[in-house]
Amino acid sequence: MTTPRMHGFTRRVGGLAFGGDYNPEQWDPAVWWEDVRLMREAGVNVVSLGVFAWASLEPEPGKYEFAWLDVVMDLLHDNDIAVNLATPTAAPPVWLTHRHPEIFPIMADGERFGFGNRLHYDPSSPIYREYAANITTRLAERYSFHPALAMWHISNEYGPTAYTEAASAAFRRWLKRRYGDLGTLNEAWTTRFWSQVYTDWDQIEVPNIPRTWMNPSRILDFKRFTSDALLECYVAERDIVRSYRDDIPIATNFMRFYRHADYWRWAEEEDAAALDIYPDPAQPDSHVSAAFQYDLFRSLKGGQPWMLMEQAASAVSQWKLNVVKEPGRMRLGSLQAVSRGADSVMFFQWRASRGGQERFHSAMLPHSGPGSRTFREITGLGREAGLLAPVAGTTSRAEVAVLFDWNGWWGLEEVAGLPRNDFSYADTVMRHYTPLWERHHAVDVVSPHSDLTPYKVLVVPNAYLIDDRGVEAVTAFARDGGTVVMSFFSGVVDECNRVRPDGYPGAFRGLIGARIDEYWPARPEEEFTVRFTGGRTATATWWRDDIHLETGTALATYADGLLEGRAAVVANAYGSGRVVYFATLLEEAAFAEVLLDEVRAAGVESRFPGVPAYVECAVRENGRHEYLFLLNHDAGLPATVPLAVPGTDLLTGTPAAGEITLAPLGAAVIQTARQAPARSS
Amino acid sequence: MTTPRMHGFTRRVGGLAFGGDYNPEQWDPAVWWEDVRLMREAGVNVVSLGVFAWASLEPEPGKYEFAWLDVVMDLLHDNDIAVNLATPTAAPPVWLTHRHPEIFPIMADGERFGFGNRLHYDPSSPIYREYAANITTRLAERYSFHPALAMWHISNEYGPTAYTEAASAAFRRWLKRRYGDLGTLNEAWTTRFWSQVYTDWDQIEVPNIPRTWMNPSRILDFKRFTSDALLECYVAERDIVRSYRDDIPIATNFMRFYRHADYWRWAEEEDAAALDIYPDPAQPDSHVSAAFQYDLFRSLKGGQPWMLMEQAASAVSQWKLNVVKEPGRMRLGSLQAVSRGADSVMFFQWRASRGGQERFHSAMLPHSGPGSRTFREITGLGREAGLLAPVAGTTSRAEVAVLFDWNGWWGLEEVAGLPRNDFSYADTVMRHYTPLWERHHAVDVVSPHSDLTPYKVLVVPNAYLIDDRGVEAVTAFARDGGTVVMSFFSGVVDECNRVRPDGYPGAFRGLIGARIDEYWPARPEEEFTVRFTGGRTATATWWRDDIHLETGTALATYADGLLEGRAAVVANAYGSGRVVYFATLLEEAAFAEVLLDEVRAAGVESRFPGVPAYVECAVRENGRHEYLFLLNHDAGLPATVPLAVPGTDLLTGTPAAGEITLAPLGAAVIQTARQAPARSS
Amino acid sequence: MTTPRMHGFTRRVGGLAFGGDYNPEQWDPAVWWEDVRLMREAGVNVVSLGVFAWASLEPEPGKYEFAWLDVVMDLLHDNDIAVNLATPTAAPPVWLTHRHPEIFPIMADGERFGFGNRLHYDPSSPIYREYAANITTRLAERYSFHPALAMWHISNEYGPTAYTEAASAAFRRWLKRRYGDLGTLNEAWTTRFWSQVYTDWDQIEVPNIPRTWMNPSRILDFKRFTSDALLECYVAERDIVRSYRDDIPIATNFMRFYRHADYWRWAEEEDAAALDIYPDPAQPDSHVSAAFQYDLFRSLKGGQPWMLMEQAASAVSQWKLNVVKEPGRMRLGSLQAVSRGADSVMFFQWRASRGGQERFHSAMLPHSGPGSRTFREITGLGREAGLLAPVAGTTSRAEVAVLFDWNGWWGLEEVAGLPRNDFSYADTVMRHYTPLWERHHAVDVVSPHSDLTPYKVLVVPNAYLIDDRGVEAVTAFARDGGTVVMSFFSGVVDECNRVRPDGYPGAFRGLIGARIDEYWPARPEEEFTVRFTGGRTATATWWRDDIHLETGTALATYADGLLEGRAAVVANAYGSGRVVYFATLLEEAAFAEVLLDEVRAAGVESRFPGVPAYVECAVRENGRHEYLFLLNHDAGLPATVPLAVPGTDLLTGTPAAGEITLAPLGAAVIQTARQAPARSS
Repeated sequence: MTTPRMHGFTRRVGGLAFGGDYNPEQWDPAVWWEDVRLMREAGVNVVSLGVFAWASLEPEPGKYEFAWLDVVMDLLHDNDIAVNLATPTAAPPVWLTHRHPEIFPIMADGERFGFGNRLHYDPSSPIYREYAANITTRLAERYSFHPALAMWHISNEYGPTAYTEAASAAFRRWLKRRYGDLGTLNEAWTTRFWSQVYTDWDQIEVPNIPRTWMNPSRILDFKRFTSDALLECYVAERDIVRSYRDDIPIATNFMRFYRHADYWRWAEEEDAAALDIYPDPAQPDSHVSAAFQYDLFRSLKGGQPWMLMEQAASAVSQWKLNVVKEPGRMRLGSLQAVSRGADSVMFFQWRASRGGQERFHSAMLPHSGPGSRTFREITGLGREAGLLAPVAGTTSRAEVAVLFDWNGWWGLEEVAGLPRNDFSYADTVMRHYTPLWERHHAVDVVSPHSDLTPYKVLVVPNAYLIDDRGVEAVTAFARDGGTVVMSFFSGVVDECNRVRPDGYPGAFRGLIGARIDEYWPARPEEEFTVRFTGGRTATATWWRDDIHLETGTALATYADGLLEGRAAVVANAYGSGRVVYFATLLEEAAFAEVLLDEVRAAGVESRFPGVPAYVECAVRENGRHEYLFLLNHDAGLPATVPLAVPGTDLLTGTPAAGEITLAPLGAAVIQTARQAPARSS
Repeated sequence: MTTPRMHGFTRRVGGLAFGGDYNPEQWDPAVWWEDVRLMREAGVNVVSLGVFAWASLEPEPGKYEFAWLDVVMDLLHDNDIAVNLATPTAAPPVWLTHRHPEIFPIMADGERFGFGNRLHYDPSSPIYREYAANITTRLAERYSFHPALAMWHISNEYGPTAYTEAASAAFRRWLKRRYGDLGTLNEAWTTRFWSQVYTDWDQIEVPNIPRTWMNPSRILDFKRFTSDALLECYVAERDIVRSYRDDIPIATNFMRFYRHADYWRWAEEEDAAALDIYPDPAQPDSHVSAAFQYDLFRSLKGGQPWMLMEQAASAVSQWKLNVVKEPGRMRLGSLQAVSRGADSVMFFQWRASRGGQERFHSAMLPHSGPGSRTFREITGLGREAGLLAPVAGTTSRAEVAVLFDWNGWWGLEEVAGLPRNDFSYADTVMRHYTPLWERHHAVDVVSPHSDLTPYKVLVVPNAYLIDDRGVEAVTAFARDGGTVVMSFFSGVVDECNRVRPDGYPGAFRGLIGARIDEYWPARPEEEFTVRFTGGRTATATWWRDDIHLETGTALATYADGLLEGRAAVVANAYGSGRVVYFATLLEEAAFAEVLLDEVRAAGVESRFPGVPAYVECAVRENGRHEYLFLLNHDAGLPATVPLAVPGTDLLTGTPAAGEITLAPLGAAVIQTARQAPARSS
Repeated sequence: MTTPRMHGFTRRVGGLAFGGDYNPEQWDPAVWWEDVRLMREAGVNVVSLGVFAWASLEPEPGKYEFAWLDVVMDLLHDNDIAVNLATPTAAPPVWLTHRHPEIFPIMADGERFGFGNRLHYDPSSPIYREYAANITTRLAERYSFHPALAMWHISNEYGPTAYTEAASAAFRRWLKRRYGDLGTLNEAWTTRFWSQVYTDWDQIEVPNIPRTWMNPSRILDFKRFTSDALLECYVAERDIVRSYRDDIPIATNFMRFYRHADYWRWAEEEDAAALDIYPDPAQPDSHVSAAFQYDLFRSLKGGQPWMLMEQAASAVSQWKLNVVKEPGRMRLGSLQAVSRGADSVMFFQWRASRGGQERFHSAMLPHSGPGSRTFREITGLGREAGLLAPVAGTTSRAEVAVLFDWNGWWGLEEVAGLPRNDFSYADTVMRHYTPLWERHHAVDVVSPHSDLTPYKVLVVPNAYLIDDRGVEAVTAFARDGGTVVMSFFSGVVDECNRVRPDGYPGAFRGLIGARIDEYWPARPEEEFTVRFTGGRTATATWWRDDIHLETGTALATYADGLLEGRAAVVANAYGSGRVVYFATLLEEAAFAEVLLDEVRAAGVESRFPGVPAYVECAVRENGRHEYLFLLNHDAGLPATVPLAVPGTDLLTGTPAAGEITLAPLGAAVIQTARQAPARSS
């Protein structure tokens, strides 16, 4: 499944990539030799170089200083450290913004961004794009064939949303491409409401101040446009470096639960999905949320190994409270990423800065130096990354898929005027994902346009806004024999954010076998009792559909309230498949039970039945082997995991059979022969 | 009491008006015929048409499209549905703001409003006024004598506050008219404080950024000016349509507890007081607050029936949480409005929109169509509205009045620098009103300039800022034998927001028979015990006057704290009347007891003694009949109400005598012969 | 220790100054004679005149009106009331800002300040400075030799921070003076991080929008620059009035815990440290915080008596809730200021305004007039101020010093990106000061550049940012035999806000005898048990150092958690002194115990052992006498204080010996012979 470019990269680094952002321009050259010595000590085999080096590479417009970078590239190469070379365009130098302040974005509050932070550019600015293309070209000219070069790191954490004149002009061009003529746009946006009809393209602007209570279709298209405008910046730089050399992989680094860029579209333009992730050590469940991200990032490129591009060695510094990763946590979290498909373990950054905004962000080599706890743990992890080289390039398989869609996210969270306006798409998705994670089910993440044939169960969390193609895909999945588990407020509006006609839920009325008269959000204090057909009861809150069964039957009904006796959970036979629809928000345990029952009924078995939830279990595989990752997230409890077949723990090199015991925060990676008969591809 | 124009309107619709906002321009013409068919099915007899139709009526400057409106007007007329035709000036089209962005208001935060919401105009903009006058003229020319026309609906929910250059210029003109010369203004505003003396009119601007900690007199005048600037916009459009035809009533729609327009002044320019109200179904007491608004709206035009112009059929969509009206609640709330003087029951809007900001705002005809619960309830209510035709044009009488004054509101809430700065005038007024409502006392609302002769009791809640004429009116009311119930922090500043001289409370020291040395706001956790002369005690919080009796006597004194033994509630004989003054915030039950004791002592009896508070009782009457509205707001409890004289329940057409039983959420409207001897007018 | 100028002032007013701000320009001249009569009745001997009178003195540019001020100055002089004459430059008149709107500051949110508040000027504006110099010159010309003139009051509560072009230009000039060349600045600011290297001075601006997540060194220098820009305004006006006459003291009024001006630098330019302070009567501990301010203000000028320039007679009006000073509190708070070195007791303001923003701010003569409680208390206090004349000019001595540094404050609170970002320097300092205050220890406040030789104990609260000179001073203090008590996160960054090299805490690793591997902020709910060597335990929260002892020993270790057994409190012998270092946040009682043990061990004894904490005790002295101030802050409890030697209570004129009993809220000022042998200077 791996592309030739990424295959080459893996071969080049000899297995898993291990390293981090390296910013030598912050330091005296004398430090560089110490850096490289300690990198070797730590097992570093790749660094991301020059991410914020524009001012050092082009100190004045058109005047370039590559000598220092030549030295560093050579030095790294001489020490067998590969380079993921960055275009430095995430932080334009002050001479550029001072000469062209119009490249600064205007922010949502109407103020123009100034110099001194980063991502201080309007992606629609032609001037920014021109200067960015130029420095990219210069780097490509000089380093495309440098032997240290192993990968290109395009810019950094694309993100800015801009409300500039340039953005309005680009938005109009984007809309013309999308709609062709104003009549179509007016229809798509329902502009007859509140007298918003456009009669000239020039009347259209990015959403104005105040940005609240705006036309929901305009907001939605502006989200799409902004994602695409940033993507254009990426593609432009990618195409430049590609034009110099074709065999080097290219990617940019994405972020965790990042709402403002549609990574499904972006992933098509990347050689690898690369993730920057900073799970908060102060949050006890942050590793579950991380697991979902890892499954998403593996899925973004169809199962191809992804890159953990940035994480923290210990604490970060950007929050109000920045708790450290306690001993062992950094290692465990890194192995977790690998268990879910990462072929790299990388950090921001190599050496802690003395000054600047992130000087208290932890680093592989912290202020307290090579004698520190953190550096010891880094060195240990580097050694283990080497032991895990056989894992590189392996993949995994799942029979359950969770739908995750940026358009749906925007529909739920970017626009006011819904029956209730406190939806959190991330929370909703995690509510659906967590029971599967706790039972060690392998899960893929899918978009409305993904191929669903590999799956037996499709989970659809609050898919309020979904396009016609997505509606057809979900419907066909059930029709063709799959099990769809869907929750309330799904299929309500079309891709233009217009209510689908003929009663709720317009897209899925046939699928769920019921029509909904009205959505009944609950008051904060309201609780309802739901009784399942078997007799057990559960509590429901937050939302009720005023639902009327058509072909569906009730799995559970309300035992109290004005909807007493009415359906709370609906089952419907659809085609040769089955649909279960949650018309309310069930308490977690009851929701999990229904979900897991459906998964089981669909013929999906957990590989790790009976293993407690705090031991995360995941499997990677290739043609010959399986690699069982067993990760004990509990700091106090040991755990014993039965092994179906004997194998070898790659971390210790010792045989493992029967069962394996994990110390608190302990981990094992068991290599076994592939059990092909047990599962069909 | 009804004006000839409104009398004509009532005759035209044949009783109560029933209908809502109709926006056919959002729909394909094919839908219009279905709309009208369903309107007839629902009993609709009037619609508000074209409220946001400017872009559809004048798609380009000076180019008009009336053909669609002609069709709709004719169609409605052919189906006996009267039209309340709107001037569409609340939502200027994009071609206007694109050509003249200077008509956008600048908001309190200094940002200029953009296109895409509504009310996006500066009322002081001469350009806006010119375009608004033009489209108003065109509509008046074309439709003044159309047979469907029954009323004019001028613009919509006037509201914007603008901080523009145009507003500053208009503010200066307004101030010149008010003060004549700068010396008078400087004196009125106490500009010697902090060196703010104006020496040229051009130095005066609307309150600048930051808008906090500004001269309190300037803030106060800016509130008055803004209300007047909006009123000028209304009057200009009204005068245009009136110039074409004189017998059609004209009004705009007001809002609930709306602080930014002095509706006492506005009401003088309206043919009817018309209210848009959206009581929150999630708030258990929202119907009590609604009752006060209904009494206010009846009082705004001296007792003349008012119009319920907009309400929701079920949920709204503008809040964070939008709870539905449970079955029966919409009907009950509508009857409540009628019980307190409404001659119309209207909704926003007829048909739920598919797109746009308010697509999840409920409608008479919701997304789920004519088979929905909501449409069934609408149809039932339409039928009942027809049965209540005899009520139209009737009025009511009260012996208790509550003072409600926008100037006082602004004084308490728009300006910082008070002893405490968390006054809520609405909460204060409701605290005084609720005990009267719970005992089914008829209450009128009065301004400081109202005729007070009909009343026996005048309730004055926290009248901190009151003008000399109001002071004299309150004083004369007591002197002439009335009972005044007043609460603390009243009569403190004059109409320029200057502390009245000679000690607190400057305006009312003689009236209450006491002087106040100092205002003592209480700490959040402080509670005090108050002992009444009879011995019972109550808890006081939030505020204490350091008060010294002069002619007054203590009804209650503090039993603890530094003011132990000092007066907490004062009674004073004044002229031939009586004054009771609350020098602290008593707990609700104790406050209610004192208030109701005074009402009783003043000779005011409840018509419905012993009826529980959850059954709202109100009376309308005309020369021959009384109409007793009995409304059970409890969803679980039935209630029995004794009837003093027999009558007929208009909703069922059945005789009613002795007592009547109301089901939970049940209602009755008993028509009886007028009991004239029992009460003098 | 008093300067000749302040000595002259004290002689002139005959002891303590007593009075307040007087704004006659707000009132009709007829009122002035009443004012002066009541001032005499109240014992007023000095007023601050004309603080906001610019518009009255220069009603048009270049047109002056001094006649009214002549009358007032003469009237006051004729009544033996001295004048502290203000330059009125804190509130530029509207003609100036209308003509030159560019003098308005631009605020942090990017909006330009408008007219109607005060402090509406950019201190870097050359135009503002020119007009301010002009009116100052005119006043100096006219009144320098008026016999009423006793002091100059330069402007008022200097404060504005401006983000204007003029500020950027001035910031660049300031940076050029500080750094000389751009290379040095780039190094100091670590601009290689995030590509921020400056290549031209013109590229540097004041911190731009958004002002968050900016370069921490730039933010720090901007704080320094803003303090200096305001100081330049002060110095310019001071030099003008000084040029006319050299023997009159000059000062401006400072504010309580005011972060935006480095008062250590300012105090060097003042003849007296003058404080405006408004302890919140709603806060039960506000007098402890006030005590620290008084010690700070005494220390700012090396122990010289300071001026209480503004306080409230009762409530203020600027907060949300403005609680009154209950009877006796105003007197007690005033005596408290005198007890800690104030030679004046002054108020804002003399007569309560009728209009304007502060009309509900209490005054010496309130709205309720001379018959009011407040005026009675003022008159009583004026009489007592006269009785305390012998105290004027006396000083006090302390053996404990607390470090207080504006640079450190800015480091902790103005810049994000720390391990945790909810430090409150004021709270931290008060946490260290309060145990000393509760035991009646005399405390001086010192800067990193103060002479530390008088002290035995130096308390260093969270000195995160401290310059090299300060590091050397603290280190030398211990080396030379002193006891340093230091708390965590001290000595971390240098004066450029760069992490000091070679491991935490770079500045103090040798001093505390330990290195810190990593800072471990605690989660909100985390609590740890700490066990002292003696066996007792205490709770720690909020922060832990991952500390490793070098020469130090543990006074206490963690009894649980991941750091179990590791040091929580460290003691280290250093040179001939001792250092105690808190590596965590101990609960208050345990912290106090360690601190007070160290104070005792250092040979510092309380003068008032056994006196309860609610009786504040402080001593002033001169060559012949000591003055023991005994102040009972409890409103319910009396207290008995033993007297070591007999004396006379100045407030009653009666002898006092053995012990003295204080009523609730009672006070005594015992004059005794100086007990020189007991203490060495």
